[in-house]
Amino acid sequence: MDQLKPSSPNSRPLTPISFIERASTVYADCPSIVYGSVTFTWSETYLRCLKIASTLSSLGISRGDVVSVLAPNIPAMYELHFAIPMAGAVLNTINLRLNAHTISIILRHAESKLVFVDFQSESLVLEAIALFPPSLPRPRLVLIDEGAESKALKPEFFSDYDTVLANGDPNFDWVRPESEFDPLTLNYTSGTTSAPKGVVHSHRGTFLVTIDSLITWSVPKEPVYLWTLPMFHANGWSYTWGMAAAGGTNVCVRKFDAATIFSAIRNYHVTHMCGAPVVLNMLTNGNPKPLEKPVEIMTAGAPPPAAVLLRTESLGFVVSHGYGLTETGGLVIFCTWKKKWNMFPATERARLKARQGVRTPAMTEIDVIDAETGKSVKRDGKTLGEVVLSGGCVMLGYLKDADGTAKALKNGWFFTGDVGVMHPDGYLEIKDRSKDVIISGGENLSSVEVESVLYGHPAVNEAAVVARPDEFWGETPCAFVSLKEGIKAKPTEKEVIEYCRERMPRYMVPRTVVFKAELPKTSTGKIQKFVLREAAKAMGSSNISKL
Amino acid sequence: MDQLKPSSPNSRPLTPISFIERASTVYADCPSIVYGSVTFTWSETYLRCLKIASTLSSLGISRGDVVSVLAPNIPAMYELHFAIPMAGAVLNTINLRLNAHTISIILRHAESKLVFVDFQSESLVLEAIALFPPSLPRPRLVLIDEGAESKALKPEFFSDYDTVLANGDPNFDWVRPESEFDPLTLNYTSGTTSAPKGVVHSHRGTFLVTIDSLITWSVPKEPVYLWTLPMFHANGWSYTWGMAAAGGTNVCVRKFDAATIFSAIRNYHVTHMCGAPVVLNMLTNGNPKPLEKPVEIMTAGAPPPAAVLLRTESLGFVVSHGYGLTETGGLVIFCTWKKKWNMFPATERARLKARQGVRTPAMTEIDVIDAETGKSVKRDGKTLGEVVLSGGCVMLGYLKDADGTAKALKNGWFFTGDVGVMHPDGYLEIKDRSKDVIISGGENLSSVEVESVLYGHPAVNEAAVVARPDEFWGETPCAFVSLKEGIKAKPTEKEVIEYCRERMPRYMVPRTVVFKAELPKTSTGKIQKFVLREAAKAMGSSNISKL
Repeated sequence: MDQLKPSSPNSRPLTPISFIERASTVYADCPSIVYGSVTFTWSETYLRCLKIASTLSSLGISRGDVVSVLAPNIPAMYELHFAIPMAGAVLNTINLRLNAHTISIILRHAESKLVFVDFQSESLVLEAIALFPPSLPRPRLVLIDEGAESKALKPEFFSDYDTVLANGDPNFDWVRPESEFDPLTLNYTSGTTSAPKGVVHSHRGTFLVTIDSLITWSVPKEPVYLWTLPMFHANGWSYTWGMAAAGGTNVCVRKFDAATIFSAIRNYHVTHMCGAPVVLNMLTNGNPKPLEKPVEIMTAGAPPPAAVLLRTESLGFVVSHGYGLTETGGLVIFCTWKKKWNMFPATERARLKARQGVRTPAMTEIDVIDAETGKSVKRDGKTLGEVVLSGGCVMLGYLKDADGTAKALKNGWFFTGDVGVMHPDGYLEIKDRSKDVIISGGENLSSVEVESVLYGHPAVNEAAVVARPDEFWGETPCAFVSLKEGIKAKPTEKEVIEYCRERMPRYMVPRTVVFKAELPKTSTGKIQKFVLREAAKAMGSSNISKL
Repeated sequence: MDQLKPSSPNSRPLTPISFIERASTVYADCPSIVYGSVTFTWSETYLRCLKIASTLSSLGISRGDVVSVLAPNIPAMYELHFAIPMAGAVLNTINLRLNAHTISIILRHAESKLVFVDFQSESLVLEAIALFPPSLPRPRLVLIDEGAESKALKPEFFSDYDTVLANGDPNFDWVRPESEFDPLTLNYTSGTTSAPKGVVHSHRGTFLVTIDSLITWSVPKEPVYLWTLPMFHANGWSYTWGMAAAGGTNVCVRKFDAATIFSAIRNYHVTHMCGAPVVLNMLTNGNPKPLEKPVEIMTAGAPPPAAVLLRTESLGFVVSHGYGLTETGGLVIFCTWKKKWNMFPATERARLKARQGVRTPAMTEIDVIDAETGKSVKRDGKTLGEVVLSGGCVMLGYLKDADGTAKALKNGWFFTGDVGVMHPDGYLEIKDRSKDVIISGGENLSSVEVESVLYGHPAVNEAAVVARPDEFWGETPCAFVSLKEGIKAKPTEKEVIEYCRERMPRYMVPRTVVFKAELPKTSTGKIQKFVLREAAKAMGSSNISKL
């Protein structure tokens, strides 16, 4: 038995790039991308990717070089998810809404050799490049101008996307990874909690999370996928490559609001989309008409509040809920829905669906462990612990950060920094980011639970709860709340506190409620708690501390 | 970038055994197996597997040891697909319909340490063991008696299944593979063409083919799967493990006919099943009632003749068609169906569906190559070449057969020994096993094409075409045909030949037609062409050779 070792026919490196090569045969004349009046087929998209890869290669971009992209969900952005790795390079998509300073830091940290820049981000990137010290080499810049005619390129730009494409060779033999553990992507974390870190994923890890995300969501062949989730956010949680594997149609939109989404659903017969709970919230405001056909919508990034879930589903969206991090490249925990749960009442269904769930089939193990003992917490749905993960989808590590990597990947686990509980049925529920746990009078309380109650208030549009320093209690919960538009009887702080008192233990009730027109958010729709935390800190100790 | 190497949190070995561990949580109280009046849940099945694995372990079965099973599609057979590898051992399921001599050879070649024996195969296995030379150690035998009460075990048997189970420890810590390339299964090829060979698959390869087979077939969560395909046939093409990944219900039946299948479909709301074209043929004979709900049926092993396909689909079965070999552990080529093909007329759809198709997402590459030059044949749907495959699902090799392994796995490919063509749209079609190609007057002709025409004849039940030696032409096509029951006007040899003449080039028309009550078949329903080839050879040179 021992003589049989892996050999080349059975151990070719796994890579998600192979999906587009396959799609170019299987779905050759089926639509790959629709974008306004433009439609591409899979064979066209494949040839375009080969051409871009060949030009990159002829420019000297080679194995392991980083190539960056700043672009919204447009066809070029999708193509570059394949074209850059096809030149052997590492794909680095950058959050469009970062400031020039942060982008400059990222480009230097990544040692990016070339940057594709959407025309709307032109001045932002030029500003970022201007911050480079004179001694440092600057990346080449390529402008994505979406066919703007005879516009003169600024001197800082080396070329434009159409020229890169036109100069390419459609017969280019794309650069396969030598090992499946070769790096494929470099994604900087979104910075909700700390300085951006460069997360590196391998071809193998991305292959696994892509396949896994298709199975987990039961994605059929030839889905029509609407790109509301930014592709720069963990590569659209891997559905960029996933759509090539499934032969899907990518409906690209430069920007969107509720009207854009509903019209895309109607016009293109959208079957699938992803979005943070704020997107769900957006969809249900303003009494939209129910859908003609159900649309599958996957939400992640924060647990969907029950009220938002029920409103979304009543419109005809089928909501699934999962959990992942930049460090896992996509969803690795999924609230796998059981047929028999369909018989439960709506509120019970919402409660079950708000849980993050169970591991996806390709993840080896997930657990909630006690920080001190390293042992599994009780499966009681109550005992808090840190969420740890192990499996092929976990990142290789953080770029140029051996300490950070060693802290995150140890004892066989990836330590997520998220705090959760394990329910008796083995479903995991995230309670908070480690630093979002509020410790009041020695009690650990979850800000997410308090928020979940606030979302049930009929006037509340969005809510976020953070710790406010307190001389007596240590910390007390402080709620930031935005109200729905058109609300006539706006609730007072006291009324909101009273509403919470009736629905949660006394120690969890916010001691402060701050009304805001809008809550600060990251580009991916996550509420920026660190901004609110700073604001709460600036208020000083709560004045009702000795209640 | 180069500092980042795989580490334990992101490189745990892939194994399909992890699926049952996951199912025991996710689908804990959902049905895993139904079998007559018995129903198990996934948590029960998992505990039963752990107990069996622990007993095996305490008997000294350890990493790399081979444990064999001779059983039909009963719960024990399903459980052993997990329990044996959970003890670290290699699973060797043996074709029930082999004779004692062949089974004896297999058990000795595999150096099997223990054999689980279904009570109906008791005497067969005892006979096989009796053929062991006295000097050789004999494997321990465990009887699967399905709860037969107080039946005394024959002295050759070490124990019975229920005792093995009862003695087990449900808290057993199952033996994980050390490397994902560790062997998981040992399957002897069915011997349609040559002596059985021991095909060894790794945990990784089986993980990949299992996941791939679910995606390819778009299997949803909680399917109800009817076991008509024998589990001893390439482990039920990997759907044994696949059902654990999908949280499916395994409907087990000891044996079946058309009535059993239709009643199982009705009683258990079956959603999925697999079967060779002969099973499809069986389903459509005797004017059965159309199904109330569509049932997905996957066929492989031979291209489904258009007539059989149309009859099956008219009953409400949704037929998918794929291709794989024991050496690939499951389907690796799949006739991926495109939405737009639904608009084509029925005969055109049947023609498209009879093609084997395109590679599954996890396969790296498939091709049809010229035996002499090693280059891809023209994509013209005509030029014959050998089908070659490369990807993670390909076997590690043949046990104790370095020559055979080196012949099959070379130049980066697995050489299937099957002959096919590549169509202009990139879909592959198998034309024959290498040795099933008939060379008549220097023309290569495909016996499968001739058979396909014969299946269109209203009186023909089954047809197989082989080469008959001929002094002038070298070989001529010789057809063996069985007729449908209840046919009144039985066609003559001349009439059948005339029917073919109208529908195919002259050189392809059978020169001989032999009517038989039934064609010889393997246990998996494949027609044993080597038996017919011998029969054709025994006829001597065709007497109409100089036509």
